[in-house]
Amino acid sequence: MRDKPAFRTESEFITWVERRTARRTPGVRLGIGDDAALVEVAPGQELILTTDMSIEDVHFTLRLHPPQAVGHRALARSLSDIAAMGGTPRYALISLALSKHTSRAWIEGFFQGLLALARRFGVAVIGGDTAVARGPTAIDAIVAGEISRGKALRRSGARPGDQIFVSGRLGLAALGLRLLQSPSGRRKHTAAAAIRAHLFPQPQCALGQFLSEHALASALMDLSDGLSIDLKRLCDASGVGACLLADRIPAPPLPDAADALALALDGGEDYQLLFTVPPAKRPQVPPRFGKIPLHCIGEIQAPRRLHLLTPDGRTRPLKPHGYDHFAQR
Amino acid sequence: MRDKPAFRTESEFITWVERRTARRTPGVRLGIGDDAALVEVAPGQELILTTDMSIEDVHFTLRLHPPQAVGHRALARSLSDIAAMGGTPRYALISLALSKHTSRAWIEGFFQGLLALARRFGVAVIGGDTAVARGPTAIDAIVAGEISRGKALRRSGARPGDQIFVSGRLGLAALGLRLLQSPSGRRKHTAAAAIRAHLFPQPQCALGQFLSEHALASALMDLSDGLSIDLKRLCDASGVGACLLADRIPAPPLPDAADALALALDGGEDYQLLFTVPPAKRPQVPPRFGKIPLHCIGEIQAPRRLHLLTPDGRTRPLKPHGYDHFAQR
Repeated sequence: MRDKPAFRTESEFITWVERRTARRTPGVRLGIGDDAALVEVAPGQELILTTDMSIEDVHFTLRLHPPQAVGHRALARSLSDIAAMGGTPRYALISLALSKHTSRAWIEGFFQGLLALARRFGVAVIGGDTAVARGPTAIDAIVAGEISRGKALRRSGARPGDQIFVSGRLGLAALGLRLLQSPSGRRKHTAAAAIRAHLFPQPQCALGQFLSEHALASALMDLSDGLSIDLKRLCDASGVGACLLADRIPAPPLPDAADALALALDGGEDYQLLFTVPPAKRPQVPPRFGKIPLHCIGEIQAPRRLHLLTPDGRTRPLKPHGYDHFAQR
Repeated sequence: MRDKPAFRTESEFITWVERRTARRTPGVRLGIGDDAALVEVAPGQELILTTDMSIEDVHFTLRLHPPQAVGHRALARSLSDIAAMGGTPRYALISLALSKHTSRAWIEGFFQGLLALARRFGVAVIGGDTAVARGPTAIDAIVAGEISRGKALRRSGARPGDQIFVSGRLGLAALGLRLLQSPSGRRKHTAAAAIRAHLFPQPQCALGQFLSEHALASALMDLSDGLSIDLKRLCDASGVGACLLADRIPAPPLPDAADALALALDGGEDYQLLFTVPPAKRPQVPPRFGKIPLHCIGEIQAPRRLHLLTPDGRTRPLKPHGYDHFAQR
């Protein structure tokens, strides 16, 4: 029998904490509830602060994930939060609670993966904390990023009529995890790309900066828990609803289309960007940003409901099915 | 049988990480190895960043520590790091890995304790991350603080002839933990003060700011793991040694003087400040800062050895005996 959970969902918990901390404090421009927090550090300059935990047997397993991937993914989660505000990541602190059984080789691999990603994004690892404890290995990756005043893109700006975009291909990371869990005879090329998407996701910082600099997006967030749950969070923050077109969603290339769509909607861990664009700015959105395709997958609507339009013309409610820490208990 | 530890000591691990991250990066004024990191965020303004983990059965237990104390202590550790640089804490992010069995009442108590301390220091809690996992509850408290450019006090500035000071009374927190673990018939007044010092330690931010503003200290750090190990860290960072006078060390009032001295030297978790003062500035150090006594307990010396002078005129080497995560394994 499961314990009665302390909170039913993460959203309920976050709202509860937010109510206890939300006070107008000098310097705070955005507190709890978005992808990251914003504070004013100098006239014209804001700092973006974010932190993400990666815990053994929740976010990774020692069996499936090489230490290089654990290090890469731990930092990628926080870099993606900076991307989700449109900012530039600058500094990182890494807190590491090591299991008593962690080997030197694992620690070396972990930092190798983490520091390679940090270097590629010009991020300096400047501190952290370390403890050795019973229980699973846990990492907390803290990243500070920069952005010009007023340029940060929040979740709360979507308005009815705005077009909904996602970058890249969704569900690939979830497919990669499935392949790692039970390797099968799937076509090699897709399999390798999916496994790479899962083990070494690429934060979309350059795209976030592009959307911020050109003021193209009315709302922006990253896709960490799954499109269905993350879109609900964006809509809730904006006080709107949405309609998605099923055949526009860039799902993984699988023979079973329903399976592919489910992975794209509920898979999570893609760390692609989800953003909304006002109709007048729609023509300015390029079909690709570098090598990353940008897909228009639906429209923001006033009624606070989420639904999905299938190719046969039928509409069904879009239920949030991504990962929720409290709901999993 | 214990596993072979990945690193022998925390210092060895920190040096290992530091070597892999220490590169001159624009904006970074101080990286891994001090109480906190320093980055330049605007001309004349530096940001102090620090993070500290608090893990069930390492830093607290559910049996001895009420949730209010767990929340207070988790944040106090990071506030104390900001004090240890001479800065002013401004913003906090709290990452929380909850055990599956955590109750709503525990979470409420935890935030009650944490937010009361945050309010008292004018610190805004602006974000964090939450997960529910098997294993012990773990908290990572991240704090960002401010300081004027060049005003931060580091561990590395102590020079031979500098006088060594500590604030407050040492060993009280360790005595409090001992009393909580096995309550006895000890004199009530001392017992209550010691238990309070353990459960609700007070970060010395105002004292740190005073030392920084008046440029009184050549080196500064906070006492988190114990005077004997923390003084060794300060001396190692400064490339010096030290001689302490046993009868000057403000130990807890216990009938057994040797026991009291051991608690003061090796107890840890006092979160008082340890600082060194050049001889010329010695007269400017007041005997008390507010209600906190400031004790001169010894002198920095050139030979890189630590020793203790006892009242009978004998000298013995001062061995570092405080808490070390890697050495505990």
